[in-house]
Amino acid sequence: MSRRRALFGGAALVGGTAAATVWPATGAAAEDADARSGDDATVGSDTVPFEGVHQAGVVTAAQAFSTFAAYDLTVTEPRRVVGLLRILTDDIRRMTAGRAALADTAPELAATPARLTVTLGFGPGLFTTTGLTDRQPTGLTELPAFPAIDRLDPAWSGGDLLIKISADDPMIVAHAHRMLHKDTRPFTRLRWTQRGFLNARGAIAAGATGRNLMGQLDGTVNPSTDAELDSRVWAGADAGWFAGGTTLVLRRIRMDLDRWDELDPAAMDATIGRRQRDGSPLSGTREYDEPDFTVPDATGLPAIADFAHIKVARGDGPARQILRRPYNYDDTPTADGGSDSGQIFCSYQADIAAQFVPIQQRLAERDLFNQWTTPIGSAVFAIPPGSPADGYLGQGLFA
Amino acid sequence: MSRRRALFGGAALVGGTAAATVWPATGAAAEDADARSGDDATVGSDTVPFEGVHQAGVVTAAQAFSTFAAYDLTVTEPRRVVGLLRILTDDIRRMTAGRAALADTAPELAATPARLTVTLGFGPGLFTTTGLTDRQPTGLTELPAFPAIDRLDPAWSGGDLLIKISADDPMIVAHAHRMLHKDTRPFTRLRWTQRGFLNARGAIAAGATGRNLMGQLDGTVNPSTDAELDSRVWAGADAGWFAGGTTLVLRRIRMDLDRWDELDPAAMDATIGRRQRDGSPLSGTREYDEPDFTVPDATGLPAIADFAHIKVARGDGPARQILRRPYNYDDTPTADGGSDSGQIFCSYQADIAAQFVPIQQRLAERDLFNQWTTPIGSAVFAIPPGSPADGYLGQGLFA
Ligand code: HEM
Ligand code: HEM
Repeated sequence: MSRRRALFGGAALVGGTAAATVWPATGAAAEDADARSGDDATVGSDTVPFEGVHQAGVVTAAQAFSTFAAYDLTVTEPRRVVGLLRILTDDIRRMTAGRAALADTAPELAATPARLTVTLGFGPGLFTTTGLTDRQPTGLTELPAFPAIDRLDPAWSGGDLLIKISADDPMIVAHAHRMLHKDTRPFTRLRWTQRGFLNARGAIAAGATGRNLMGQLDGTVNPSTDAELDSRVWAGADAGWFAGGTTLVLRRIRMDLDRWDELDPAAMDATIGRRQRDGSPLSGTREYDEPDFTVPDATGLPAIADFAHIKVARGDGPARQILRRPYNYDDTPTADGGSDSGQIFCSYQADIAAQFVPIQQRLAERDLFNQWTTPIGSAVFAIPPGSPADGYLGQGLFA
Repeated sequence: MSRRRALFGGAALVGGTAAATVWPATGAAAEDADARSGDDATVGSDTVPFEGVHQAGVVTAAQAFSTFAAYDLTVTEPRRVVGLLRILTDDIRRMTAGRAALADTAPELAATPARLTVTLGFGPGLFTTTGLTDRQPTGLTELPAFPAIDRLDPAWSGGDLLIKISADDPMIVAHAHRMLHKDTRPFTRLRWTQRGFLNARGAIAAGATGRNLMGQLDGTVNPSTDAELDSRVWAGADAGWFAGGTTLVLRRIRMDLDRWDELDPAAMDATIGRRQRDGSPLSGTREYDEPDFTVPDATGLPAIADFAHIKVARGDGPARQILRRPYNYDDTPTADGGSDSGQIFCSYQADIAAQFVPIQQRLAERDLFNQWTTPIGSAVFAIPPGSPADGYLGQGLFA
């Protein structure tokens, strides 16, 4: 198993010897050690350290469940926002360590954190509301409109503050969500909540790439080495208070599964440029084969077509790579009997304008896949660096 | 660990030596053998046999996820309903064995069944619509109104046909749900869908009782031996085509967690009659101690008060026991910031009128717990016996 797969592919990690030198700051080395055994008796007691240069929950091996809750501030003074962030950080620190939040009447539910991480994000509105626009990270910009594809619903878009709660157990996600939601009430108004899931921990091989609801292996190509993550995901030392932070683009993308079902398997594979069966590029035979866009198929045309999702998404090369961490969503079927399912697309990058936007622009123009996928929600957040010891998340912004 | 706990308490089983003699018909013995190891690499490949005297998914050790989908028939001729049941049974037979449903465009998603079971139920409306009221099981009766407590929303109530999809992986539940939902379209109209969860498999010790969203251990007292299940859960030989079936009462019960949070821990424990910490009755010290309603507390009053949930629910003794298999639900917080959480209460019993109704009547009259719990949905279903080999679920009804 390659390091790439071990680090990004699945819910649990195996091996892990190399990892200790890779993520010392986020404490993921400890996580590796816990998850290594593959013994499901450890699912509940596993923890991911809260302290670190970066917030946990970004490069942490994706937990099986994530709830994303976005709020708008109802307070404007920075010191009130600081008050909220202190309260949230205190409860996050406790719960990620398996201890109960303050005034939790069901402290027993906190005892099985199951790799709980809570990641906070600041929308552009947080900077304007608090009068701190001059400190807004340069990497955080609103997306341009993509009229060719977007059918955005305000009910799934925007937000001043994001709370992302992730764990391998839906019970701890629900409970931590409730505790943190209570914390926000005096300071905010709820904007939206989205619930996502992947395979349960242990349902697929540790480190394997998970499938989305169309059945495709989703997450094969992603930055993975230290150097890649430092240059593409984390804001550098020149970012001032934001160094060690990143940005999140969250897009709620509905899948038209009923119409997708009408395609034959070859057309599905051509649309992506990879085989659904094993995730191999149409130019190769194995999932991690490097796609070769010059290899012809039997008819002499490129095996990976120009309209293929992976061809269009790749575009101008690895320097603009983003870290994709999608979750599946599946809500109640619509009144006309269609499914309401899709992907909570999440990408982390140092700079939205320089990295995400060009990819999305190309995809909006000529990705055949757009015929079966529709963005219905959109939001961007700055993910501040990790909390100082004894400090709070986002502290640098208010220093 | 007692057999009671091993069989009913949690998502996975340990030991299992005795179990082979207990559930040969449902094939749960095979399930025990698979689940025994506690190794999470088996979560995905575990299967629960479809064939059996009883349908799977009733006494099967509760899977971590259940989706309940209720439909109303749009066809009336029995032969059309038989057509639907044949199609459903065929796909259920495939998917529970880890094979793809017919015409599944994402067959890869079916390969990790994770103990998938699909259980069908027939509401009273199915018998009237098809003109088969004379064959409606005597154990299946509509509930009387409970005006003191019920705030029922039609959007969560009733239904001619129930499809309950349960597994330890949310991906297979979502995918199987989509496949079966497609099957129903030419024959039905969707009435409601409810999604429930418990702890992830392996998050708590195998066989341990799970907690609900208030934090209580929920599921301690339940029928468990062969004799208890045969007399209280399964319809007997005198039930004709329905022998080996059971009935399900499903109640969607909202918890007012915000007001519950205002209680102090002693008041919470008094309301239930058990300690939240370890589930022990207030008359004893361990979860499985038999509650003794005569033991006094320090003040000389009964340690378990007359209004305690377990005192009122127990009432007239074990012969009327029901098999409780609740799931937690947690939907988007309401506009005013309150949580929308609670329990999908499920009870299985041979006879609704004789077993469930008296308990619910007593609870509606004098259960203190009613102050924090509100039934907002209600439905009853006959759960037909298992399918004959090469036959279909519900076949006996149309024979
Ligand atoms: C429902 C929506 C989407 C689905 C189901 C989807 C699915 C996939 C799949 C199956 C792959 C190939 C395997 C892999 O490398 O992970 C892929 C690759 C990729 N996707 Fe998407 N995708 C979606 C939306 C997006 C969006 C909105 C973006 C960015 C704006 C994006 C960017 C990429 C990139 C950068 C790659 C890697 C391309 C490469 O090989 O270099 N995708 N996607
Ligand atoms: C939100 C709703 C409910 C919650 C949170 C809840 C919770 C509990 C808890 C914590 C126990 C004690 C532990 C155990 O034996 O499982 C219990 C016992 C019980 N409950 Fe409930 N319950 C709810 C609704 C109901 C309803 C609607 C009924 C039936 C109409 C019911 C019937 C019972 C019975 C029969 C027992 C066992 C009593 C005994 O010890 O013999 N419960 N429940």
